[in-house]
Amino acid sequence: MVKTDLPAGSTPANGSAVPTKARQYFLPKLDGVHNLAVREFDVPLPKANEVLVKVHAVSLNFRDLTIATGTYRGPKHENLVPCSDMAGEVVVVGDDVEKWTVGDRVCANFSQAHLHGDITPETANTALGGSLEGVLTEYRAFPADSLVRVPQYLTYEEASTLPCAALTAYNALHGPTPIKGGDWVLVQGTGGVSIFGLQIAVASGANVIATSSSDEKLEQAKRLGANHTINYKKIPDWEKEVQIITGGRGVDHIIEVGGPGTLNQSLDAVRMAGWIHVIGFLAGNADVSNVPLKTLFKAAIVRGILIGSRTQFEDMNRLFSARQIHPVVDKVFDFEQAQEAYKHLESQKHIGKIVIKVSRQ
Amino acid sequence: MVKTDLPAGSTPANGSAVPTKARQYFLPKLDGVHNLAVREFDVPLPKANEVLVKVHAVSLNFRDLTIATGTYRGPKHENLVPCSDMAGEVVVVGDDVEKWTVGDRVCANFSQAHLHGDITPETANTALGGSLEGVLTEYRAFPADSLVRVPQYLTYEEASTLPCAALTAYNALHGPTPIKGGDWVLVQGTGGVSIFGLQIAVASGANVIATSSSDEKLEQAKRLGANHTINYKKIPDWEKEVQIITGGRGVDHIIEVGGPGTLNQSLDAVRMAGWIHVIGFLAGNADVSNVPLKTLFKAAIVRGILIGSRTQFEDMNRLFSARQIHPVVDKVFDFEQAQEAYKHLESQKHIGKIVIKVSRQ
Amino acid sequence: MVKTDLPAGSTPANGSAVPTKARQYFLPKLDGVHNLAVREFDVPLPKANEVLVKVHAVSLNFRDLTIATGTYRGPKHENLVPCSDMAGEVVVVGDDVEKWTVGDRVCANFSQAHLHGDITPETANTALGGSLEGVLTEYRAFPADSLVRVPQYLTYEEASTLPCAALTAYNALHGPTPIKGGDWVLVQGTGGVSIFGLQIAVASGANVIATSSSDEKLEQAKRLGANHTINYKKIPDWEKEVQIITGGRGVDHIIEVGGPGTLNQSLDAVRMAGWIHVIGFLAGNADVSNVPLKTLFKAAIVRGILIGSRTQFEDMNRLFSARQIHPVVDKVFDFEQAQEAYKHLESQKHIGKIVIKVSRQ
Amino acid sequence: MVKTDLPAGSTPANGSAVPTKARQYFLPKLDGVHNLAVREFDVPLPKANEVLVKVHAVSLNFRDLTIATGTYRGPKHENLVPCSDMAGEVVVVGDDVEKWTVGDRVCANFSQAHLHGDITPETANTALGGSLEGVLTEYRAFPADSLVRVPQYLTYEEASTLPCAALTAYNALHGPTPIKGGDWVLVQGTGGVSIFGLQIAVASGANVIATSSSDEKLEQAKRLGANHTINYKKIPDWEKEVQIITGGRGVDHIIEVGGPGTLNQSLDAVRMAGWIHVIGFLAGNADVSNVPLKTLFKAAIVRGILIGSRTQFEDMNRLFSARQIHPVVDKVFDFEQAQEAYKHLESQKHIGKIVIKVSRQ
Repeated sequence: MVKTDLPAGSTPANGSAVPTKARQYFLPKLDGVHNLAVREFDVPLPKANEVLVKVHAVSLNFRDLTIATGTYRGPKHENLVPCSDMAGEVVVVGDDVEKWTVGDRVCANFSQAHLHGDITPETANTALGGSLEGVLTEYRAFPADSLVRVPQYLTYEEASTLPCAALTAYNALHGPTPIKGGDWVLVQGTGGVSIFGLQIAVASGANVIATSSSDEKLEQAKRLGANHTINYKKIPDWEKEVQIITGGRGVDHIIEVGGPGTLNQSLDAVRMAGWIHVIGFLAGNADVSNVPLKTLFKAAIVRGILIGSRTQFEDMNRLFSARQIHPVVDKVFDFEQAQEAYKHLESQKHIGKIVIKVSRQ
Repeated sequence: MVKTDLPAGSTPANGSAVPTKARQYFLPKLDGVHNLAVREFDVPLPKANEVLVKVHAVSLNFRDLTIATGTYRGPKHENLVPCSDMAGEVVVVGDDVEKWTVGDRVCANFSQAHLHGDITPETANTALGGSLEGVLTEYRAFPADSLVRVPQYLTYEEASTLPCAALTAYNALHGPTPIKGGDWVLVQGTGGVSIFGLQIAVASGANVIATSSSDEKLEQAKRLGANHTINYKKIPDWEKEVQIITGGRGVDHIIEVGGPGTLNQSLDAVRMAGWIHVIGFLAGNADVSNVPLKTLFKAAIVRGILIGSRTQFEDMNRLFSARQIHPVVDKVFDFEQAQEAYKHLESQKHIGKIVIKVSRQ
Repeated sequence: MVKTDLPAGSTPANGSAVPTKARQYFLPKLDGVHNLAVREFDVPLPKANEVLVKVHAVSLNFRDLTIATGTYRGPKHENLVPCSDMAGEVVVVGDDVEKWTVGDRVCANFSQAHLHGDITPETANTALGGSLEGVLTEYRAFPADSLVRVPQYLTYEEASTLPCAALTAYNALHGPTPIKGGDWVLVQGTGGVSIFGLQIAVASGANVIATSSSDEKLEQAKRLGANHTINYKKIPDWEKEVQIITGGRGVDHIIEVGGPGTLNQSLDAVRMAGWIHVIGFLAGNADVSNVPLKTLFKAAIVRGILIGSRTQFEDMNRLFSARQIHPVVDKVFDFEQAQEAYKHLESQKHIGKIVIKVSRQ
Repeated sequence: MVKTDLPAGSTPANGSAVPTKARQYFLPKLDGVHNLAVREFDVPLPKANEVLVKVHAVSLNFRDLTIATGTYRGPKHENLVPCSDMAGEVVVVGDDVEKWTVGDRVCANFSQAHLHGDITPETANTALGGSLEGVLTEYRAFPADSLVRVPQYLTYEEASTLPCAALTAYNALHGPTPIKGGDWVLVQGTGGVSIFGLQIAVASGANVIATSSSDEKLEQAKRLGANHTINYKKIPDWEKEVQIITGGRGVDHIIEVGGPGTLNQSLDAVRMAGWIHVIGFLAGNADVSNVPLKTLFKAAIVRGILIGSRTQFEDMNRLFSARQIHPVVDKVFDFEQAQEAYKHLESQKHIGKIVIKVSRQ
């Protein structure tokens, strides 16, 4: 039985018209944010197992910047519709879809086909705004099983920040040895993943140490629940400070965003048999020749994190709902201001997430 | 090398004299609280791997009442020194002990030999105040490896409440499938284990439902963080209310203190493949003939809980410290008022734990 | 893009014709095996996310007998196509299916929508041959994501035995505390689930104890790798024998097929903090009033098992393939002999599984 | 109560005399195997919580060679009694020891104080034959809780091979994500750890791929159960061969003994989200600058392994016993031939373990 068989251009049950044409951003070239341009496209009908979503808000990640400027190492292509993170509203439901109805508020999972369990080459290859076309578009069809429900207490702007940054932090802290109340967690900096890592760790009963080069940002980290903060400009040997704070034991989990540039220090800051979750390479290159030996002598565990599965996204939403965690939104831009939004991200002055409002309703 | 070789009767480093004689309670007969009597005993020297502890505070459990009144089904004997839960101060350290020094604040693990992993017949047989002599005594020697450090922010009175009730709740919620942020947890009533279960669940990011027959106690549960409460006198079908609250899903974990009298309802309140942690039998007997079939059709997991290991006690203290959780102490009695303390427990008017102050220092 | 858009009645790539009409069994009434009758039906075209499967072999479970005779407590209805377990060949592939191609050898998961994680009320409600129409039919369409690939080394007859019995045993032994090499496992009897439990446990490095009322069946259990066997007719106190065999420790896991009739003995045979996996109620009713208290004092874990997820099915197939485990097939019947096959199951003379050959190719 | 209070020099219950003097090897200097010398020492009485063990057999590890030749990076000192691995017989039991009796056959855990859970700086610092005096001695006292029982079916020679090499392999395969039947495991070479890894993986139901530069050694690996072998002299791109064997999926676990020299290839051979267990650095230095990025893009997990806990040792012995696994002993030398034994190890011609028989009884 068909749940909603409205063609594009007609009006679904809740009265919001689905137009036949709509606008979307695309990147004709990948050598700079200035390429970001708007084009008109034909709004598609969903396949039998898809739903059509009206996008309300999109949030930016550092990955989006590297794609637009050509430094991203993963899959991408010219004329790409950019961005991976959105929250929106179901407006048309495919014939065989049981799970969703018109009006449902949803996010799409970053890797569309990564439904549960570990990532695979096949599921890694379904990343929005990279392998697949992205979400900086007024309408987009998604496979029904790639979506998660937006918790009631969140706005579309807030929810749009979850798919990449929050899920990466959640996956880091809920790996083979999930975070446990009383654990010590170190988050590096105050970017999107780190702030979410802080919030998730606090809500899970952990002790959190946050680092940053800015006292102002560290104040914000404290307001979000960080037990300790370290300004690494003032204390470059932050790994020693971590050992002092933890009484010589070291931390159980590190959200490692610096990569080679901070990995050596992280290996000194982590406890024996503790976890370093590598999620990015913001600190640039550095000598890592010592890393394997240190890993061995510390019995440490270095783990790469590639976002997460839809099941983890649902689990994360349950935690967020239980503690009514609100994502930290730095600034909201209008659809027409996408280039400004990207440039604000580039400036690194933000704390938390940058959002583009796509729909005005 | 000897760490502290003071004989009983001499004065250790921190100046507190260790007397040669001290007082302790014992139960010459096991047919009523009125038997509780004080006797003098020779303070022992610790063996090579023991420490002598000056007991500061003792807390009572329902088990202590059943032992004193003769209804306890586990091991016990006449002339038993009662009680399992204490916090105290190390005053003499055995020759081969590396871990402790005079002045350290400690709790003893309920099952003295249960250091880590699952309980065994051998370790189950080392329960304080039952299999072994208890802790309602001014001094007692303990094996060095049966002790845990008291978190700095807790008083002796607060810390004395942890060994049995808190660890039981912690073990329940950190079993083979440990509690996860976002889980739904149901605690039955507002006795010691249930209140600790509530506090641990809240600190771990869970949604908590508390039940009680008293609105006043439910108010207290809300102040401690319960998301929902149910007065089972007003709503005897509390399992249906649980299903409504959870949107028809049921709860992930139940701290089951009622036993046969509530097990059937718990099986209706738990989600499919959820956990019922059986820790007591307060609700009396009832027909459980339907329980195995319900367990099967619900794919539920019914698990018996016998306190926990020293390692779990240490893990629990880490969680308590991270969130500065304060045990709920209902009332503190003097050493001489032990019978009154037992009677207060019997009256079931308390919320949280009843403590006996053993030492005045 | 359409993968295979052949209408029923045409000839797919590999040359096997898909007829427009085919035969299937159904149960006009549910009061006896004699009702089993054959009818002709229109072979359906698969939906966009389905595949059409030509069924080659079907295996019987005790559940099928209880459904046919009217004693099954779960969902069922008159005119039901019976049976849940089949192995077959993909003959037509729906338009949106990426995963399968014509000629692939597949089994369907027992609970069609139980893809991964714990069972839910929704997924429990998609059981083949009960909630949904069954597989004793020459052709049937299945959702693409409900299927698993048949390991190359297995025949269709062998593979048809896996969906219910083998997966139940696998789920039992791979629950929250998965079987570990060196564990002791007790399997009750030599029915389908128990024999698979034995084979899985042996392949996983466990010590296995098998019980039966027949020395001949115990001989077979030994040939399959059981380390110890107990004839419970000769030794009715088999739980004491288990304690002797295990040096007083008890077993880690019990595959409990007897239900109330054996649960008390199982609680005596299991080690402290060990697992009893309740999968059936073959031993009839008995007094279980003591079960909750025993569960508590043993710190035991009693868990209901409802088959398993598609992901577990795939994991199980990996284990079977690594060790080239062959299911024990007791007897193969022709499609026309379905009633005889059911009666053979009823006689309880079999060891292992009873199979009906549906297709002759 | 004293269990055995025999002074050294007297005769315990089972009639084996404990001499007052005995022989042991020591390393006056750490610049070569030629330094290994024998000295006489006073056999100590065990402390209250120790037992005195008569050493029957000692096995060598690569670590012993690096200590004797001065290239070991961990703690060591001149005049060290070398070696970490022994099996022997309890001959005197300390006053407070409950667990052991005279005549018990035991191994000592490599890290004496690592009883359970993760390794810590404190427990890492109790390694035999490095931090602490070693076991190439006719008698040695051990803390009672540092010992494990030798499985009945093993000889002293066989059992002496377990503490370091077997436990390292077991810890690798039983980490946060324990090996599961059906997993793919790659073992590099045919040294002690790799051969044990192969045997443990096979007994656990895994698919095993073994690599070596010698066809003869690969033949031996096959006899021990390896499903596939790769001669990396003939196929230097062994990581590509691994991908072919596993159908492009890669292996779940790699026992990484090569270190920097093979880590890059291991990252290509492991599946996405798979485990690389770093246990040594036999393949020498190499460029690892690419390792962190590869770890990220593969979502791989690189884990350092430092032997294991006593609890893991006991778990391992249960697995070995269930499947009657016999360690591969390459050659047994007499006590007087210790230097020859070391040189045989240096020659790298062995498969499996080299043993020194210490006692002739």
